[in-house]
Amino acid sequence: MSQYTLVHGDILYSDTSDTLACYPDSWMVIRSGLIEAVEPVKPDIEGAKVRDYGHQLILPVFSDLHFHSVQYAMRGLGRDKELLPWLQTYTFKEEACFANIEYAERVFKQLLNELWTEGSFNLCTFSSLHLEATLLLMDMYEANEFRAYVGKVNMDSNDPILVEDTEASFEDTKRWIEESRALKYTKPIITPRFAPSCTPKLLANLGRLVEEQQLPVQTHLNENHGEIELVAELFPDYDNYYDVYRKNGLTPEGKTVMAHCIHNTKPELEAMKEDKVLIAHCPASNVNLSSGIMPLRDMIDQGFLIALGSDIGGGDRLFIGHAIVDAIRSANILSIVHEGKVAPVTFPEAYYLATAGGGSFFGKTGTFKPGYSADYIVVDDSCWPATNRYDLSERLEQFIYAGSGDRITERCMRGNLIAKPYSSL
Amino acid sequence: MSQYTLVHGDILYSDTSDTLACYPDSWMVIRSGLIEAVEPVKPDIEGAKVRDYGHQLILPVFSDLHFHSVQYAMRGLGRDKELLPWLQTYTFKEEACFANIEYAERVFKQLLNELWTEGSFNLCTFSSLHLEATLLLMDMYEANEFRAYVGKVNMDSNDPILVEDTEASFEDTKRWIEESRALKYTKPIITPRFAPSCTPKLLANLGRLVEEQQLPVQTHLNENHGEIELVAELFPDYDNYYDVYRKNGLTPEGKTVMAHCIHNTKPELEAMKEDKVLIAHCPASNVNLSSGIMPLRDMIDQGFLIALGSDIGGGDRLFIGHAIVDAIRSANILSIVHEGKVAPVTFPEAYYLATAGGGSFFGKTGTFKPGYSADYIVVDDSCWPATNRYDLSERLEQFIYAGSGDRITERCMRGNLIAKPYSSL
Repeated sequence: MSQYTLVHGDILYSDTSDTLACYPDSWMVIRSGLIEAVEPVKPDIEGAKVRDYGHQLILPVFSDLHFHSVQYAMRGLGRDKELLPWLQTYTFKEEACFANIEYAERVFKQLLNELWTEGSFNLCTFSSLHLEATLLLMDMYEANEFRAYVGKVNMDSNDPILVEDTEASFEDTKRWIEESRALKYTKPIITPRFAPSCTPKLLANLGRLVEEQQLPVQTHLNENHGEIELVAELFPDYDNYYDVYRKNGLTPEGKTVMAHCIHNTKPELEAMKEDKVLIAHCPASNVNLSSGIMPLRDMIDQGFLIALGSDIGGGDRLFIGHAIVDAIRSANILSIVHEGKVAPVTFPEAYYLATAGGGSFFGKTGTFKPGYSADYIVVDDSCWPATNRYDLSERLEQFIYAGSGDRITERCMRGNLIAKPYSSL
Repeated sequence: MSQYTLVHGDILYSDTSDTLACYPDSWMVIRSGLIEAVEPVKPDIEGAKVRDYGHQLILPVFSDLHFHSVQYAMRGLGRDKELLPWLQTYTFKEEACFANIEYAERVFKQLLNELWTEGSFNLCTFSSLHLEATLLLMDMYEANEFRAYVGKVNMDSNDPILVEDTEASFEDTKRWIEESRALKYTKPIITPRFAPSCTPKLLANLGRLVEEQQLPVQTHLNENHGEIELVAELFPDYDNYYDVYRKNGLTPEGKTVMAHCIHNTKPELEAMKEDKVLIAHCPASNVNLSSGIMPLRDMIDQGFLIALGSDIGGGDRLFIGHAIVDAIRSANILSIVHEGKVAPVTFPEAYYLATAGGGSFFGKTGTFKPGYSADYIVVDDSCWPATNRYDLSERLEQFIYAGSGDRITERCMRGNLIAKPYSSL
């Protein structure tokens, strides 16, 4: 039997970081889960299976490079607070609930259903500090064929509600990595919450583990002025905030995700570029918590690797279209504030970040070039009154700005269609 | 038979412009479509009908004080353009389609379904310049019990695609007002598109009509620098942009809605306050089209009457929760940019604008005080995992930030439950 699948529809993906490739009424050739080609004419392949989506849009799955799976239930709360008081008032209390595995399962089921609905399948996410909840979360992502890096959070300092013993934190981390080794699509990522919640000893131990086991790392960086001052106070012997992670071996080259990166110093930027850090830009969260506005235009122009994050629960909504729009709007605002001296960010640029840009952290996913994993969503916009007058890129823009997961009719990972995770909910 | 209806649930509304009144597990007493009281204990009224919503939230309906009903099909498009080129490239072409009454009906049905879904029932909206489409739109709002001011747009100047003859524009306007006189819930509002699209003669004629028939007025003001320069060029004999409307009798006291009002001069602000103008703040649209950021904090503190507008299609989404969030975020950004010297806008303040603030333009609607129209929506957030740990104001915040119309289970206007307008779509 042929291993080929032919997928027909209006196909669209990021060609470069600022251009879209549009293939109306075209065919995607999939072989053993990988894309071989996208062609305007139906290829003649004997025995190939056909999935015909008519004039629906076929797009890469979305990548969400920074969010907290355990903050799903408290998204949208505490918007009158900045980072540190927000953590104390809402976040740590909510995360403490994940000691209860039944509660954890209830939240995770809803979260996975919504991620599926919204078409986000390439994920880099924080769990809580709890070993059992983290392993459950990984099993659930795995069973539903998401491609996920999941981090058991390390935090042994500076919070009375949610804190680990330094030794126990490290032992749990090693056990978690051991126990998640067998998973195929879901991988552990070392996750010190942020520098202020870790002792130097724990950071150093985690860094050695990263080196020994060649693990990736995710954490927060330069989000909020209060946080940056706290780091300077707690770690006076380091050059800067990024240096705390770097000197402890927590910035492995090409395998590090840093969320936010709003208020960076020049030496930090230079080091991050050297380390090929992926920056997870979270525009909604940054404005919600009055953290600041990341200079996206400038960071793109400087050649940084950038992706988008919903940052649930500092952000509010999982549909990554919101992150695309919020990124463009934040860049527009910087342009307005600087009276046009800073250029805005275009739609194709922001869309790239949310698909191919984020996807690059996982390997070949997020666009439809030959050799990439056949990871796509199908969008039916035929009910919208003016669809037939607009071209593919306009239809994409309308879906991102005005649509949501309720327009997505099919999800496919590695060539396989993905059913709703918990359809009885 | 008793005219009383008792409504039970977790009741919440704006008490003042910056405080919420929260009545958990309480009762709203409705008599002949008007609210008599909200009470914590079930009143003993013989024969009263009971609607028991358990622990669902009962909230005032939303007010959307500025959007273009005829731009629904093109929302989310052309976000790389500023106002004037955006109008030329997308908007006027789309509005020209409303000469076709079948197309108009198709768009309006979808629009009304979505307004119903999202709980927006107090509306101030632009139609196109077409008489027939405008009358159809008004009939449809009326039949579905929305409370709407609808404007046939006047534009007899400065656009090659979409333009009326000066005399015909005025004659059509008079006929439109005559023909819509019999409607009960839907009322005409004089709607010069904006100064640049009207000749001085048409403006003067419209102003006389406003005076003669005691009509309200809506239009655009001080949205974009290019627009403001164009007005100065076209109307050199007026003191400022607002003065063009005012000297022509188009700012009737307490009956005028001005959309945007971003770049105002001091004399304009003074005149607007004198005229009791309602300012329709459209934060999403203003950032989408790089128009600027309205100084909301300052305008509230100066005592202006303010409401929110989705501004479809300069804005993208009808759920007015987005306008609330975008208003807070825009105010946060001004606070960030001015390094904390400008205070942010609180959640209760922004929520007020979207309910009671906007409602004030229509009479007694938008909050639940005695004598107000019983206009409410019911929100079921019980599926969310942490609902039972949060108080009413936190649940409201979560619904606004992370929810949408799909959590609304019932809509009521004037005490009557409202069915979905076009349920077969």
